[in-house]
Amino acid sequence: MPELRRDPASRSWVVIATERSRRPSDFRVSRDERKGGVCPFCYGNEHMTPPEVLALGRDADAPNDKGWSVRVVPNKFPALTLDAGDATGDGGGDGGTHGVDGPDGLYEHLPAVGVHEVLVESPDHDSTFGTHSQSQMEDVLEAMVARARALAGDHRLRYLQVFKNWGRIGGASLEHTHCQLIATPIVPAVVEEELAAAREHYDKTGKCLYCDIVRAEIDVAERVIEKSDHFLVFCPYAARLPFETWIVPRAHGARFEDIGGAELADLAGVLRRTVRRFELAFEVLPYNLIWHTSPWTGDFGAYYHWHLELVPRLAILAGFELGTGYYINPTAPESAAASLRECAPESVLETDDEARVTTLLVDERAARAAERGLEEGALEK
Amino acid sequence: MPELRRDPASRSWVVIATERSRRPSDFRVSRDERKGGVCPFCYGNEHMTPPEVLALGRDADAPNDKGWSVRVVPNKFPALTLDAGDATGDGGGDGGTHGVDGPDGLYEHLPAVGVHEVLVESPDHDSTFGTHSQSQMEDVLEAMVARARALAGDHRLRYLQVFKNWGRIGGASLEHTHCQLIATPIVPAVVEEELAAAREHYDKTGKCLYCDIVRAEIDVAERVIEKSDHFLVFCPYAARLPFETWIVPRAHGARFEDIGGAELADLAGVLRRTVRRFELAFEVLPYNLIWHTSPWTGDFGAYYHWHLELVPRLAILAGFELGTGYYINPTAPESAAASLRECAPESVLETDDEARVTTLLVDERAARAAERGLEEGALEK
Repeated sequence: MPELRRDPASRSWVVIATERSRRPSDFRVSRDERKGGVCPFCYGNEHMTPPEVLALGRDADAPNDKGWSVRVVPNKFPALTLDAGDATGDGGGDGGTHGVDGPDGLYEHLPAVGVHEVLVESPDHDSTFGTHSQSQMEDVLEAMVARARALAGDHRLRYLQVFKNWGRIGGASLEHTHCQLIATPIVPAVVEEELAAAREHYDKTGKCLYCDIVRAEIDVAERVIEKSDHFLVFCPYAARLPFETWIVPRAHGARFEDIGGAELADLAGVLRRTVRRFELAFEVLPYNLIWHTSPWTGDFGAYYHWHLELVPRLAILAGFELGTGYYINPTAPESAAASLRECAPESVLETDDEARVTTLLVDERAARAAERGLEEGALEK
Repeated sequence: MPELRRDPASRSWVVIATERSRRPSDFRVSRDERKGGVCPFCYGNEHMTPPEVLALGRDADAPNDKGWSVRVVPNKFPALTLDAGDATGDGGGDGGTHGVDGPDGLYEHLPAVGVHEVLVESPDHDSTFGTHSQSQMEDVLEAMVARARALAGDHRLRYLQVFKNWGRIGGASLEHTHCQLIATPIVPAVVEEELAAAREHYDKTGKCLYCDIVRAEIDVAERVIEKSDHFLVFCPYAARLPFETWIVPRAHGARFEDIGGAELADLAGVLRRTVRRFELAFEVLPYNLIWHTSPWTGDFGAYYHWHLELVPRLAILAGFELGTGYYINPTAPESAAASLRECAPESVLETDDEARVTTLLVDERAARAAERGLEEGALEK
């Protein structure tokens, strides 16, 4: 059974998820071993995943069969599970039954209660946030919202971390385009710190920190990549990594899952264009896309403001970053935003240069297929 | 000029170091570009680095020439510099002259005042912490201590982060074995959090947290890798990443640079054996080795305890870790410690199996040389 342990020195929680792998030899996974493998997220392989919890785009009376546009399944090797132990606890701040070991309660632990799901974004193995159609991208966001609303009702869960790992350096262990949802029994440290900073700003000024940031960035303009009807896309003032990009709703709202229909459609377009800009600017771009939203316990409506952070993994987090928690960013966000503004995805994607896009897409797919050792002919599936 | 900026949402500081690189094309560094390059850290190329600040092993009257055993030079592309601006400030908590921009002082910034040095560990391009001789390793530690003592006297500096990045995934941009020293004008967030946790434990129990951890780990035994005269080497209870290993002095001490001679010699041996264990257990092991010590401002002697954290980079820090600050570790530290105990570096390195070591070393060097595109013959330098 996985276990949540707290480090007494850094006070951070760690999921010890021993189901996943153990010994040194388990880390010697060469790329060859994945060659010619069958993808569990492609049509026809639905039986290779645990039974789906949601599918869009096909009749509900034929579950776990092809025909879906988006599919959500439990992670086959979950970091957290609802049957990890007693998590009804005392309703206190930690969401479960504490244990302590060692002198003076040195070592705290909790059952690793939670939910770990995978959202398969498309039947198309090689599509991306940058190449999904508008309706495909809307389906992805609708499925996320539906799962967030469903999980919010479970009193054992305190927070939902939605994220997308893209590329091997970004931490994606499966190539087929997908997102992940992890619901945790504790409010994570990074989220607590953000809530505290937002609360402090609110107490001092009477205003939402993120609403102020949106206003300041529109005013300054030099870090803005795109301003849509409902969102501001910009490189933040203190970007931690080169080309870090935030997508913040222009209207105040504390929870992602309260998003309205028009806002969701606009976000789908914003995400497609933003990721497409990165695909045009970089040959290979591993990234993490991270949802930041309110915990399910407590009322943060007045001062927290949900948003997305896109973290390209062009630089390595190394000894200095791990030791200090501070970052060295070699690219000023003003210059990153200028470069990304120059890559105009709409004109390329939708109007005058269809041929160039087609070439780019075919090149990308060929490169990715070559990486996993497929013949060129296998692309025509 | 580099600038320190504070993100108002996470409250973390970022060095915007625009001297280093800027645009998307700058990140397209293929491995080919480094083929056949001249190494600035090898004998005869001393003119390729800024003038040395310290060298051991050669006469002081012939600086910046070959003959040294360890050499410390300013980083050619420093993240922080002492001439970044006025840092005399008010002597307050942040070490420099604050600036604020935006409404309500939304965006804080500081001149990026500090020191960034590189410690070249050996004239041997391909040696490692696992293959350095005992006297070589002692020279490395002596040079670190000397630099820490020298920099501690500068009132503009608050903390010294010593670290080693090894392997490309570990963030090493130059291959020749080296460590780095970065002195910062602010006490980093990770250090502040550790100090707070240690202080809280001390206030509650009257004892040092790390002394208690050392006692508990010796008592439990299952996470211990090695107990030397002066150090305990173990996988911590809540290891964040697979095979994370801590090296903690058994006697209480708040500052690395106060280390005594016998302790330093013992640490040299411990480091050689520990890294050698990893080299024997894994084919390729990128890692970060991170010094944790007391800031230069304030008195932490009663409750803080310096130590080293070795963080193997076998798993990727991805969306979940970046979003939550929590980690998912697939290898229980008890099983990691058992695997590492099995790799007995002393018997291999120093007694009955010289032939095997030689083969291992030659294989490793050949693999690394092949990686950078050298001919086999070029090894015999």
